Amino acid sequence: MLGHLPKKVRIVEVGPRDGLQNEKTIVSLEDKVIFIKMLAAAGMKEIEANSFVRVEKIPQMSDGIELFSSLKKEATLSKTKLISLIPNLIGLENALKAGVTEIAVVTATSNTFNETNINATTDESLKRIDTIVARAHKEGLKTRAYISTVFGCPYEGKTSLAELKRVANHLESLGVYEVSLGDTIGVANPLQVKEIIQFLKADFPLDFFAMHFHDTRGMGVANILASLEMGMTSFDSSAGGLGGCPYAKGASGNVATEDLVFLFSSMGIETGIDMEKLAQASSFILDKLSKGSTSKNLTAYLASKAQTSS
Amino acid sequence: MLGHLPKKVRIVEVGPRDGLQNEKTIVSLEDKVIFIKMLAAAGMKEIEANSFVRVEKIPQMSDGIELFSSLKKEATLSKTKLISLIPNLIGLENALKAGVTEIAVVTATSNTFNETNINATTDESLKRIDTIVARAHKEGLKTRAYISTVFGCPYEGKTSLAELKRVANHLESLGVYEVSLGDTIGVANPLQVKEIIQFLKADFPLDFFAMHFHDTRGMGVANILASLEMGMTSFDSSAGGLGGCPYAKGASGNVATEDLVFLFSSMGIETGIDMEKLAQASSFILDKLSKGSTSKNLTAYLASKAQTSS
Repeated sequence: MLGHLPKKVRIVEVGPRDGLQNEKTIVSLEDKVIFIKMLAAAGMKEIEANSFVRVEKIPQMSDGIELFSSLKKEATLSKTKLISLIPNLIGLENALKAGVTEIAVVTATSNTFNETNINATTDESLKRIDTIVARAHKEGLKTRAYISTVFGCPYEGKTSLAELKRVANHLESLGVYEVSLGDTIGVANPLQVKEIIQFLKADFPLDFFAMHFHDTRGMGVANILASLEMGMTSFDSSAGGLGGCPYAKGASGNVATEDLVFLFSSMGIETGIDMEKLAQASSFILDKLSKGSTSKNLTAYLASKAQTSS
Repeated sequence: MLGHLPKKVRIVEVGPRDGLQNEKTIVSLEDKVIFIKMLAAAGMKEIEANSFVRVEKIPQMSDGIELFSSLKKEATLSKTKLISLIPNLIGLENALKAGVTEIAVVTATSNTFNETNINATTDESLKRIDTIVARAHKEGLKTRAYISTVFGCPYEGKTSLAELKRVANHLESLGVYEVSLGDTIGVANPLQVKEIIQFLKADFPLDFFAMHFHDTRGMGVANILASLEMGMTSFDSSAGGLGGCPYAKGASGNVATEDLVFLFSSMGIETGIDMEKLAQASSFILDKLSKGSTSKNLTAYLASKAQTSS
């Protein structure tokens, strides 16, 4: 009941894309580069850096091509795995021109969510992904996939486990190296997390999955603990808890990397992340956004530091 | 690995005392009464309502006698267990005059913390508690006890498990009905929580303990989950996450009752609490304090409501 914890875990930093995408204040290309370099300096080895979407769709992500081209020139990022979100073939062509080596694609277990979010049914979105992945793999890129609404949908409520299995199977057959299971609206609970992992265990190797939790109802860290106890070792998170929840204005979005770092390191699990440098990276970008952090650990860390130095 | 969850849990609401004590803005006696009545209306059956401290020591708690006398007159609180914190014999005499029927006493596993917090060594504090409890039990009162710094001390760092056992044994021998194990500075992690509960299990019945977590580093809900998995069913929390952390200015203190309510109810565990009425109680007092909530679930709840009604 006590042991069975892994020696180390993998954290995929999604702040620069999934986090910033939900922030209204537009961050300059220069500041995005600095932020990503600071994250890499803090020990983040895998960073979702940008998205190749249509310029008019998400203003914060409109500099995808220029941003990636700038990142490619940074010597300090040469060993960092930079991931780009790709919504369609045009995006992929732009990504290829910019020199991308790893992409992420996205679908959901909820048909209504897919229709609203990416203007395609689940089946249509899988067909779109087929084309993207085929072309990407032909070009030697690695592909990661997100499945959204695994734990609940803002439109349909409860989502189907059979559909989750079908979608994950489809993605596995395409040769996607990892599927990140998204709690898009932050409604997951630890019991559900354990049940879903148990369900998937019968058909997939667990290391095919990463867990992507939102902290909208304060369950993020507890859900990660539940995943960890079930044998999961890969987690997505956002520096400083960057990014809100589009389905509840003012509420928290992605679980904060700092909270994961405390959870793991306090239990003796290696993350490879330097908390001081991570706090610097988060403080830098939060300052640009003129906002505070939703990360309680970052807040406590900065408060303790201020107290010590005063 | 999945099951073993209890059907219901007990939540002791500590917002009016432990929460408010750490808030600078002084709340009027009338508003405290309204707040406590709203908490009771939300389903809270046990509320730590006030403290009988020296008037000059904690301004927010200086109305202990008047507050308790007012609460006694409220018909809607006749079935609510109201608990008063008692620091010394003078406090107990005042409490008896005010008609208190249940008290709480406090000590810590850290000698330095006791000396700083209550101006007594651990042994001196236990002697003080001996006198208080003896007199209280003679008058037919029920007694609850807090042990602070169980998971770490702001002065001594790691604290002793042997000392925890010794202090808990001493309190048990006095006939205290429950000991609440406090993570005073919010440094506990789920592995440590499980190890400490496992350690105590050898010498005590688990239902002798309640868990009292702070959310300073965002681990509150995860630590409660870990406790739950170890068989614990009693938890202290504070409405809206009321009360900060005196050891890191600006950081979170007590874990929020709303976050517990989501955790438990989403897993099918009964709390007896009405989320809507709890949100109203928390909103009422946070409004009086002119501050936002540290509870992510309350924030999401209010945001969703605002969105639905707009």
